[in-house]
Amino acid sequence: MSDCIFCKIITKELPAHKIYEDDEVMAFLDIHPVSRGHALVIPKKHFTDLVNTPPEVVANLMAIVQKITPSIIEAVAVAAFNIGINNGSEAGQVINHTHIHIIPRAKDDGLNMWPEQPSVASDIETLAKKIKEKIV
Amino acid sequence: MSDCIFCKIITKELPAHKIYEDDEVMAFLDIHPVSRGHALVIPKKHFTDLVNTPPEVVANLMAIVQKITPSIIEAVAVAAFNIGINNGSEAGQVINHTHIHIIPRAKDDGLNMWPEQPSVASDIETLAKKIKEKIV
Repeated sequence: MSDCIFCKIITKELPAHKIYEDDEVMAFLDIHPVSRGHALVIPKKHFTDLVNTPPEVVANLMAIVQKITPSIIEAVAVAAFNIGINNGSEAGQVINHTHIHIIPRAKDDGLNMWPEQPSVASDIETLAKKIKEKIV
Repeated sequence: MSDCIFCKIITKELPAHKIYEDDEVMAFLDIHPVSRGHALVIPKKHFTDLVNTPPEVVANLMAIVQKITPSIIEAVAVAAFNIGINNGSEAGQVINHTHIHIIPRAKDDGLNMWPEQPSVASDIETLAKKIKEKIV
């Protein structure tokens, strides 16, 4: 897409700190990192978000995530990482081109996980039934 | 594994608010939810974490995530969601059985994304080269 920043990175109209590239996928370091080594993995073809990305493309993206993550965390000398995908602006998706975050994590790095909210579990049994009915 | 909580959920030794099940995968609501509808998708076979899960199993898990998430967010009346995978205790992984978080998100729900840390981007170009060399 002509106005998509990630498409422009793929076509080299915009620069990026690239760490991996093949025919289908590109990976580069996030210029707004949450932690050292924070990387993004994107499909070269434009899809707006996870919901609109074909499962076979997602499968390939995740295979690349698994392939490159050991090198990323080794380079920044940590043992753990988070994988994150934000779907929709309310979830923090800023660029509307599917991307997977790889966020290296160290002990006591000060990054807080999302806080548990026990109150929202009050109707968990009813809610599970409601969702199950929608899926089947 | 005999001491794994998720394996016991699969064998029905422990209860769960199940929302989806097939021969390979189970999904249920997280009893420590971050948001209403917070669900976990797990493989029935035991793998300790993402790094140790075969790519074809990950592909199937993600396909189920894509299949069931529209029903989850519809049930809790939101339009957005985060996907999260924590690999390693420093990343917040508590149960050592691979699982994918689906976290429904609403506007102004008070959940903070991880904060950007511009300071860690100071050597981003050098770091990208270092990682790239390790991958190739």
